[in-house]
Amino acid sequence: MFNHAPSNYKCPICLGVTGIENEDTLLKKGDLVYKDESTSVFINSFFIGKNEGHLMVVPNSHYEHIFDVPPTILHNIMDTAKKMAGIMKKVYECEGITLLQNNEPAGGQHAFHFHLHVFPRYTDDKIYDHMTNKRLATPEERKKYADKIMEYLSSIKPL
Amino acid sequence: MFNHAPSNYKCPICLGVTGIENEDTLLKKGDLVYKDESTSVFINSFFIGKNEGHLMVVPNSHYEHIFDVPPTILHNIMDTAKKMAGIMKKVYECEGITLLQNNEPAGGQHAFHFHLHVFPRYTDDKIYDHMTNKRLATPEERKKYADKIMEYLSSIKPL
Repeated sequence: MFNHAPSNYKCPICLGVTGIENEDTLLKKGDLVYKDESTSVFINSFFIGKNEGHLMVVPNSHYEHIFDVPPTILHNIMDTAKKMAGIMKKVYECEGITLLQNNEPAGGQHAFHFHLHVFPRYTDDKIYDHMTNKRLATPEERKKYADKIMEYLSSIKPL
Repeated sequence: MFNHAPSNYKCPICLGVTGIENEDTLLKKGDLVYKDESTSVFINSFFIGKNEGHLMVVPNSHYEHIFDVPPTILHNIMDTAKKMAGIMKKVYECEGITLLQNNEPAGGQHAFHFHLHVFPRYTDDKIYDHMTNKRLATPEERKKYADKIMEYLSSIKPL
């Protein structure tokens, strides 16, 4: 229902979750900052205005949009998003968090695998002025943010 | 943690959930389109660009933002949001759905009670051009959308 991906769709997010780097995905292994049984989190390939390094929480299995995601997986995605929001507050030193989740092309969905954006927010960041004006960040720019999160996550792991 | 509401905060959303109409809330009883044990859904008081009549899913209990909402309630909110997204697709005849959830003033949060916006989306609606340019809709304008949803919900209730 409400599906738009072509039948031969090479899902860029499925490739990222699997850890495959090729010409069908912008995701690199270095963008993955968190993975559990049902969800993964990546540094988004695109940077938006002053809100650089925002995260994308995805289900590991392929579901096109919110209408396709089973309830339990949707719950897991939100649990992961909340966890990541707390981590971003600490390591990005941001002043707020915005969650954004687009469904269908008219809704601004470009990759046809459910993804929830988690944005760091800063006072007067004018995020909406840049939403349609995103820029592809280099893997090195993304790694700077991935490193912050990975460093924090490894610091809280039990010895 | 990360709380911003003043200690004497008269929560406009708590008033709406309780069904109290007074000068501390813009919400009217007619804006409430759905309520279950833990969540309520209102037509948002503000209309944004072409995306009029968007919904706001809230927990019935008071939690300021995502950091305060317990996991089970967060799950219930998402279940309600998914249900409402499906209903909006039918009765608004929209072409997509966007979820937006802001935390803390720097994140664009104005009412200090967790709320998840559910927007109807239309091709080329340029929603972001209007995000900071919202207009207060009249109760009558809001009722037009509330009626659509209520009519649908009553049609699917078992006899």
